[in-house]
Amino acid sequence: MKRATLADRHCSLARAGAELVDGWTFLILREVMMLNSRFDGLQAQTGMSPRSLTLRLKSLEQDLILEKVAYQQKPQRFEYRLTEKGQALWPVIMTLKAWGDSWCDQWSPNDPPMHLQHDKCEHTFIPQIHCSHCQTVTTEQDVIPKLSDKMQQERQQMQRVHGEKKIKL
Amino acid sequence: MKRATLADRHCSLARAGAELVDGWTFLILREVMMLNSRFDGLQAQTGMSPRSLTLRLKSLEQDLILEKVAYQQKPQRFEYRLTEKGQALWPVIMTLKAWGDSWCDQWSPNDPPMHLQHDKCEHTFIPQIHCSHCQTVTTEQDVIPKLSDKMQQERQQMQRVHGEKKIKL
Repeated sequence: MKRATLADRHCSLARAGAELVDGWTFLILREVMMLNSRFDGLQAQTGMSPRSLTLRLKSLEQDLILEKVAYQQKPQRFEYRLTEKGQALWPVIMTLKAWGDSWCDQWSPNDPPMHLQHDKCEHTFIPQIHCSHCQTVTTEQDVIPKLSDKMQQERQQMQRVHGEKKIKL
Repeated sequence: MKRATLADRHCSLARAGAELVDGWTFLILREVMMLNSRFDGLQAQTGMSPRSLTLRLKSLEQDLILEKVAYQQKPQRFEYRLTEKGQALWPVIMTLKAWGDSWCDQWSPNDPPMHLQHDKCEHTFIPQIHCSHCQTVTTEQDVIPKLSDKMQQERQQMQRVHGEKKIKL
């Protein structure tokens, strides 16, 4: 039910969130991006139960983020690969990793669990958000949000339904 | 248990994932970023039950992502504000929104639920990842990962424990 509700919302963030499900998803994506892509290896490195891992892999397959590919016949063996949609999550993973490096625990920002080097300038890679049109660094202050009519309608309806529920109580 | 396990891993992504919990978190953060920051308004726009919303707000407070601030005395009334750590999630929210715009449903990429305009160049804002040192556009191919000793040790241990479990079965 949780997924259905979130996935129905007229909001890219809600739908993206519905597909990513929870923190374990990021761990699975991390492993597949590190080319640890078979069930056994995924189970070892995530520490998930076979059942939980199976369910999440199925869900990621259904959402077309991962695909299950046979890498061997007789006996048939499978691995999980990122689809184009899955690969497009790279910026999300990078910004989330950077946030975790800075804010989510005891390690010093200069000594994160995984160090990334930018091969062009050879410095530590720390992602920064730029505007894809004018290429300048962009922060929250530089962006003007404008809701689509449909999202606006959804917000009005959510408010109305909430008001009616309160009157009934 | 889920949170504790993920939060213990030597990985910024796992710990970030543990704090963000699930897709609902992104919806709550979206609302607070849109300055809909009181319990009643959050309940209306997320559609969450009071209990679920309370639990998630408490968890976001504990993780120092949101803070509960009294905006009125007599009677005392509260709102939720992003802390510095919460504000630092902006790049994650932007990249996740962009991914959802492109991949998570029927809307056309040119007509997302929420349109963002870059105020400097006045074009649609689409986030792009650059290297914060040399300022060039950076993709997955440009980054060389290097695991810290501690993460390497954790991986070896996860593999060992997994092997031992399999032998027992």
